[in-house]
Amino acid sequence: MGSEMASSGAAPEIRPVILCGGSGTRLWPASRESMPKQFARLVDPVQSTFQATALRVADQALFAKPTVIAAAESRFIAAEQLAQVGLSADILLEPQGRDSAAAVAVAALHAASADPQAIVLIMAADHVIGDADAFRAAVAAAAEGARAGQIMTLGIEPTRPATDYGYIRRGSALPAAAGYAVERFVEKPTQAGAERLIADGALWNSGYFLFRADVMLAELAAFAPDTLAGARAALEAAARDLDFIRLDAAAFATCPKISIDYAVMERTGRAGVVPVSFPWSDVGTWDAVWQVLDHDAAGNALRGRVELIDTKNSLVHSAGDGLTTVVGLEDVVVVTTPDAVLVASKARSGAVKELVGQLRAKAHPEADAHLRMYRPWGWYQRIDIGERFQVKRIQVVPGGRLSLQKHYHRAEHWVVVKGTAEVTVDERVALVHENEAIYLPIGSMHRLSNPGKIPLELIEVQVGSYTGEDDIIRVEDIYGR
Amino acid sequence: MGSEMASSGAAPEIRPVILCGGSGTRLWPASRESMPKQFARLVDPVQSTFQATALRVADQALFAKPTVIAAAESRFIAAEQLAQVGLSADILLEPQGRDSAAAVAVAALHAASADPQAIVLIMAADHVIGDADAFRAAVAAAAEGARAGQIMTLGIEPTRPATDYGYIRRGSALPAAAGYAVERFVEKPTQAGAERLIADGALWNSGYFLFRADVMLAELAAFAPDTLAGARAALEAAARDLDFIRLDAAAFATCPKISIDYAVMERTGRAGVVPVSFPWSDVGTWDAVWQVLDHDAAGNALRGRVELIDTKNSLVHSAGDGLTTVVGLEDVVVVTTPDAVLVASKARSGAVKELVGQLRAKAHPEADAHLRMYRPWGWYQRIDIGERFQVKRIQVVPGGRLSLQKHYHRAEHWVVVKGTAEVTVDERVALVHENEAIYLPIGSMHRLSNPGKIPLELIEVQVGSYTGEDDIIRVEDIYGR
Repeated sequence: MGSEMASSGAAPEIRPVILCGGSGTRLWPASRESMPKQFARLVDPVQSTFQATALRVADQALFAKPTVIAAAESRFIAAEQLAQVGLSADILLEPQGRDSAAAVAVAALHAASADPQAIVLIMAADHVIGDADAFRAAVAAAAEGARAGQIMTLGIEPTRPATDYGYIRRGSALPAAAGYAVERFVEKPTQAGAERLIADGALWNSGYFLFRADVMLAELAAFAPDTLAGARAALEAAARDLDFIRLDAAAFATCPKISIDYAVMERTGRAGVVPVSFPWSDVGTWDAVWQVLDHDAAGNALRGRVELIDTKNSLVHSAGDGLTTVVGLEDVVVVTTPDAVLVASKARSGAVKELVGQLRAKAHPEADAHLRMYRPWGWYQRIDIGERFQVKRIQVVPGGRLSLQKHYHRAEHWVVVKGTAEVTVDERVALVHENEAIYLPIGSMHRLSNPGKIPLELIEVQVGSYTGEDDIIRVEDIYGR
Repeated sequence: MGSEMASSGAAPEIRPVILCGGSGTRLWPASRESMPKQFARLVDPVQSTFQATALRVADQALFAKPTVIAAAESRFIAAEQLAQVGLSADILLEPQGRDSAAAVAVAALHAASADPQAIVLIMAADHVIGDADAFRAAVAAAAEGARAGQIMTLGIEPTRPATDYGYIRRGSALPAAAGYAVERFVEKPTQAGAERLIADGALWNSGYFLFRADVMLAELAAFAPDTLAGARAALEAAARDLDFIRLDAAAFATCPKISIDYAVMERTGRAGVVPVSFPWSDVGTWDAVWQVLDHDAAGNALRGRVELIDTKNSLVHSAGDGLTTVVGLEDVVVVTTPDAVLVASKARSGAVKELVGQLRAKAHPEADAHLRMYRPWGWYQRIDIGERFQVKRIQVVPGGRLSLQKHYHRAEHWVVVKGTAEVTVDERVALVHENEAIYLPIGSMHRLSNPGKIPLELIEVQVGSYTGEDDIIRVEDIYGR
């Protein structure tokens, strides 16, 4: 204990919590429920904002092992992306989204179970921060106030009179720590309101919070007792599921759907704020994505195979193999994916959320599902579909193993194009190598796994009267699905 | 002969000629060299403009069997599209495009070989005409002038001061027939020039011509003797190739690359024009396509799977299975295909030609090749490609038969998903039915045909170190390729 105190001072560790809920519909079609923006690589082609967020608090001298609170459906992506950057975390799974108050309550309870006075740092998984050192310095400063019993936020110095952010009016300087008491939280203002707020020294509400676990629990008990009770019951009845902690669905469902801002921050007398000026964006719209990206001389931010004629100040993002071209336009967003294309006025890119609502109302599958669907064992992607057939490309990671399954309405032909497959068909087990094929008759019990050291890729040709995903009868699954 | 004269009068038959050259790059990506706009179904989802053009002159009481002059590469599409609408034609193949003077010379020679005084009607394959009866009435009127020795054109009454069309200034009324002598042809004018021309009663130059074969040949001899000599030699040395007449390449290459307007019309004293006022468009740009299509209340013309928010006066054309969305834009053109997307300002849609030049300069394959490639036996389309593999969907028409071939660098797996295939592999012939597969080892001599009554569809998975189209060693081919 002595040497630990010598290296980290007398301060308790900061316990980072990454909130990963949210489906990011305003960045459709790159972000969809099946691969929301915090996991997509929209800003940086190498790293998702979730990964960048986790790496920002990876310094073990300053931060404890992080906790990730994610939607149950995102659990394999979250775990896989952490593994890619060499990190591990406690992953708590929300059976359904109940907004941020419930998630913060779970985070505070989880931290308190280890140390009631633990300092908890709540972070969004989908923000871009331009200066990690400045961020950590701000967190260290805010931690002082947290230790002194404040619920601290990071308040971003505004760079423009944004109307799509909440603002924080600061009051007097805190007596015992850096920062200010919060005078008032102000909802998204008008343009004129934003200008007045900025003139008065107000800050953008970033959604980052630092608090002592016991302080937050006391405030939740006072202002949001239902949320706290539901979160506590959900955590007490949580089930371990592989490496995940699955919150109890029935208990969690009793948590009111409310944000931590409404539930606690706007009511507590303990709110404090540390002003920060590092580059920050919540990348909430395609316009915001364009703003954080590098631009060429014409003000364009380009990704993938793109060709332009006389086009300016635009974001053109060509995902997949296709070629995307733009002629004679300014201030537009063009995002192309293999199954869906968005063309929008940059100024109206906030309306993409409304568009996705329209797509859902009309039952377009592209509203929520990506063509490439990630699974714990790898991914699959439909590459063709016709009247009585469907073709998929399937990748299985080394050691990956699909469920033991059968289909009532289709036969399948598998052609291995990379790696080696171990295929079980009824009683028989076969190794199928590159350039070999195997046939799975209708009704046969089968299982695919990758016993090798490199990813396995195969082409699956399904033939039958019905090729929907719901004609999969799972008999056994190592991933507990 | 008596009854024929009773039904058609003393008039000789009109011999329609459809000029099908041109790659229509300004309508990229829907129109490409591998499927140019006259064969694509851009305006009418059921019928190409080539088919509509042929049907417009299908009345055998008025018109003889048409002659089609097409690029050699388009021969199977042209024949197939004629067959689809129940028509047949003499199809003359240009080994390379030499502009319209050479094509008109070939047409005049071909007609004269049957009847030196035949009336020839030259038509473009890529125009939209809103009133077929009015068109035929105009042709009948212009045929009078042609019989009297004039080279007649149809002059469209302008509906706006277009700067992208040529104009015809009319002179005195013809003495012996409907219409006027042409005073002068005027190249694409400025806006002010167009307004003056229209005030003076000038007409748009539609590119339709009617003439007696002997008259055109005499004028060609006088004004374009090299063109005439090259065309004559190319026709005399032409080869019959299945149902096609293939002009001799060496001879045809001697024809100067010049339009019939420059070569003859602007020089002859015999030019006449019949004013017409039927709805007409050369559908030369996406803007022009938008103009001829029906619009919804917001002025949008939509095709395929499209969803809009606050979008006006735009053309959104979603080819293939994908979903195309537009938010908050006006006067744009969005054309999506499975491998390429165009987003353009409607006003700048003429610059698509420049864009295609840029794509060619950068060697993007999408500049000229479509993903779905038509062949005499059907079509194929790449549906996936990876490091050492490629997947195609192949359709073979009933009776279709691919060449006998082999590959040095790839093996192939064929899975039949519809119909029945007859597959020859080396010495063996097998019938492969729906939901059956067959393997073609590297180097095996193989052939695919469809012996059935319905189209055959199969998924081809190629595996090997190289999957390019040029690793096809053709040993025998019923289509003479």
